[in-house]
Amino acid sequence: MDSIKIALLGCGTVGTAVAKLLAEQQDVLAARAGAPLELIGIAVNNLDSERDPAIDRTLLTDDPHSIISQADLVIELIGGIEPPRSLIHEAISAGASVITGNKALLAAHGPEIYEAAAEKNVDVYYEAAVAGAVPVVYGLRESLAGDRVLAVQGILNGTTNFILDEMTTKGLDYAEVLARAQELGFAEADPTADVDGFDAAAKAAILASLAFHTRVSLDDVHVHGIRDITAADIAVAKDAGYVIKLIATARLVDDDGAYGIEVRVNPSMVPQAHPLASVGGSFNAIVIEAAAADRLMLYGRGAGGAPTASAVLSDVVAAASKRVQGGRAPLEVLFGDVPLLAPDESVSRYFMTIAVRDEVGTLAEISQLLAQCGVSILELRQSSVDQSADEDDGGLAYLTITTHRAKQSDVRRTVEALGELDSVDHIVRLFRVEED
Amino acid sequence: MDSIKIALLGCGTVGTAVAKLLAEQQDVLAARAGAPLELIGIAVNNLDSERDPAIDRTLLTDDPHSIISQADLVIELIGGIEPPRSLIHEAISAGASVITGNKALLAAHGPEIYEAAAEKNVDVYYEAAVAGAVPVVYGLRESLAGDRVLAVQGILNGTTNFILDEMTTKGLDYAEVLARAQELGFAEADPTADVDGFDAAAKAAILASLAFHTRVSLDDVHVHGIRDITAADIAVAKDAGYVIKLIATARLVDDDGAYGIEVRVNPSMVPQAHPLASVGGSFNAIVIEAAAADRLMLYGRGAGGAPTASAVLSDVVAAASKRVQGGRAPLEVLFGDVPLLAPDESVSRYFMTIAVRDEVGTLAEISQLLAQCGVSILELRQSSVDQSADEDDGGLAYLTITTHRAKQSDVRRTVEALGELDSVDHIVRLFRVEED
Repeated sequence: MDSIKIALLGCGTVGTAVAKLLAEQQDVLAARAGAPLELIGIAVNNLDSERDPAIDRTLLTDDPHSIISQADLVIELIGGIEPPRSLIHEAISAGASVITGNKALLAAHGPEIYEAAAEKNVDVYYEAAVAGAVPVVYGLRESLAGDRVLAVQGILNGTTNFILDEMTTKGLDYAEVLARAQELGFAEADPTADVDGFDAAAKAAILASLAFHTRVSLDDVHVHGIRDITAADIAVAKDAGYVIKLIATARLVDDDGAYGIEVRVNPSMVPQAHPLASVGGSFNAIVIEAAAADRLMLYGRGAGGAPTASAVLSDVVAAASKRVQGGRAPLEVLFGDVPLLAPDESVSRYFMTIAVRDEVGTLAEISQLLAQCGVSILELRQSSVDQSADEDDGGLAYLTITTHRAKQSDVRRTVEALGELDSVDHIVRLFRVEED
Repeated sequence: MDSIKIALLGCGTVGTAVAKLLAEQQDVLAARAGAPLELIGIAVNNLDSERDPAIDRTLLTDDPHSIISQADLVIELIGGIEPPRSLIHEAISAGASVITGNKALLAAHGPEIYEAAAEKNVDVYYEAAVAGAVPVVYGLRESLAGDRVLAVQGILNGTTNFILDEMTTKGLDYAEVLARAQELGFAEADPTADVDGFDAAAKAAILASLAFHTRVSLDDVHVHGIRDITAADIAVAKDAGYVIKLIATARLVDDDGAYGIEVRVNPSMVPQAHPLASVGGSFNAIVIEAAAADRLMLYGRGAGGAPTASAVLSDVVAAASKRVQGGRAPLEVLFGDVPLLAPDESVSRYFMTIAVRDEVGTLAEISQLLAQCGVSILELRQSSVDQSADEDDGGLAYLTITTHRAKQSDVRRTVEALGELDSVDHIVRLFRVEED
């Protein structure tokens, strides 16, 4: 049988690992795919850069077009929007299937790329774009193919998970831990994409699209990062039985007239017994709730050359095997546009701490205000101190309230109304709380 | 396009859930598979039994042969060895692909069935046979297709996990918890298959075959169940930072001259921070170690009608889609027989408690004996009491030893030699300890 010709674009950490695995695992890959896999070239920017000695330098080229035109499969591991976007379109036009780990590109321009691929009857695979080695794209696309996904929730960014973990285990403040993470190379010099939640949001958009057979882009995701989390927040959460995690959520809401997909990334209080609570360091994990399967969790390395390369190779085998078989079944099923839920309709439990002037009647006043705003109290504690308090807080008291499930709009109204009360000094913290 | 014709054999809890999902999810299944899926009949023993009202009674038949002969896909959910074995062979001979959840059959007669299928160019799918909704067959077969699996370890039996969980959280003894589990229907009247580890062993044999591209049958699995675990064992483990779990292990050993596959099921002490330690109740979880992907964990419902049906449906979509595409790539890759590791070569850390007569020199004598047997001590504690001790233990002392990694043969020799020492009263407990 003819070999399947592969063009590799990019030879960074992941690209290098992919090239090595293609060579090392040649026999099993050929057996799995049904034909030998032949790496015909590796497109790089600089032919003279230093490379892993295992890379066959005769495969290197600085002309991606020359290898794309001959390839059955094109693996894009360059990253960023351009040139990947143009090169992927070029590959699709030439009739090649595409494998990419480029979450930024897919979150921004996925629909355009999927449509171009559908038109040319080729496929786009992107297991490596979300959660590294964790087979979540597979899980949603194949394992739950006969089920109905209700929600996908996960820890999708290793950097922020590492930072929150360090803050939790060492009691340190955000700024200290970030500085250390930057020194150690676990965080970028400009950490915005990670700490402000945009990296997780891009992955959430991709997962939401897959889970609900529709198209969700980065702009549709409501994002809140971890910059304003304090050591005090974490200590208070711990006392209350929670861990603070940056959680990405994609959920189909169909409840009480509200219908649509809710996609958001925000720090949440996660109950300590929740399977996501114990996901530490740079690991990623995704919990999928499905109608029949109930709760599934997938957990593993979310980044790194070898783990991400493993995900790329699984896509290579799938794409190659489909090509050998002449397969033409669509990789994805679209049911048109499911509406996005208006953010105000989003419902969660909440945890808030309110600093109040300790006057007679304050508790009653605040309880009444919450009730008027439609926010019902599950648990309330009053305390004369808070972890966040300065030495001299002028005799403030602290109300910590856990609410029943409440609409975001009602919670916003509550916060506004609390700000107008003379008895309220300030809102110390406000977090969503995940269900058990 | 012509529809894909499906014969369903068996209409118990899982069969009923499958029939319902096939009807409810008709549109998405057809889109995913590339053709409509048509349930042409459901073979049952007794046509007059009470059924879920959602089951279309006109589909019922007591003649499985009549529907097998017309089917593209045959779903076997009867359970047990016969008639499933004959019916599956009949389906394969008729050119149908087979989907089964029958772990007992596959662990006993898998190779014969896979060979028959290969000869007729049809496939056998069995996601539902191992760990219910957890997509571990998929994970090993597809997601790690370009990687090299080093080990698979998991909690594969919900009944024993529930029993150990209850013993751990409530401090109860095995017999009490088993009786309660039987009352609640979580354990069978004859619990042998679960508590003696045979159910987990059948699943371990299937996973070992898949992970290492070879054939491992139930008889190749070294099994030790949970009947002799005491509340004292669990309390001691907890004090030492471990949880006792029934762990199935399939590992490729290639180390110091020892080469082969080790497949076993036994109670192990699992470090509390290990991802398997927090898997509670009836959940299943599997940790896969692979060369590139590093550590992956898949977690979910290991049993139950709907979760298992979800796994069956994912196989139905894969099998149907392959049929629509005319696919002929082999589902599995075999590299012939990898040898089984001689059990004596198996290497673990161990945890043992020895009841000794508290005489001068005992500690030195025992330390020397372990060293002579090639078992090296990582940690040793001496105590005047053990959780297992009677009120009047005649002045015994208790040595608790955690070892470095040691060969099973050396540990066996150690235990034999300890039994011959006058200073040793008895061995209280001996457990393998999992690595972090």
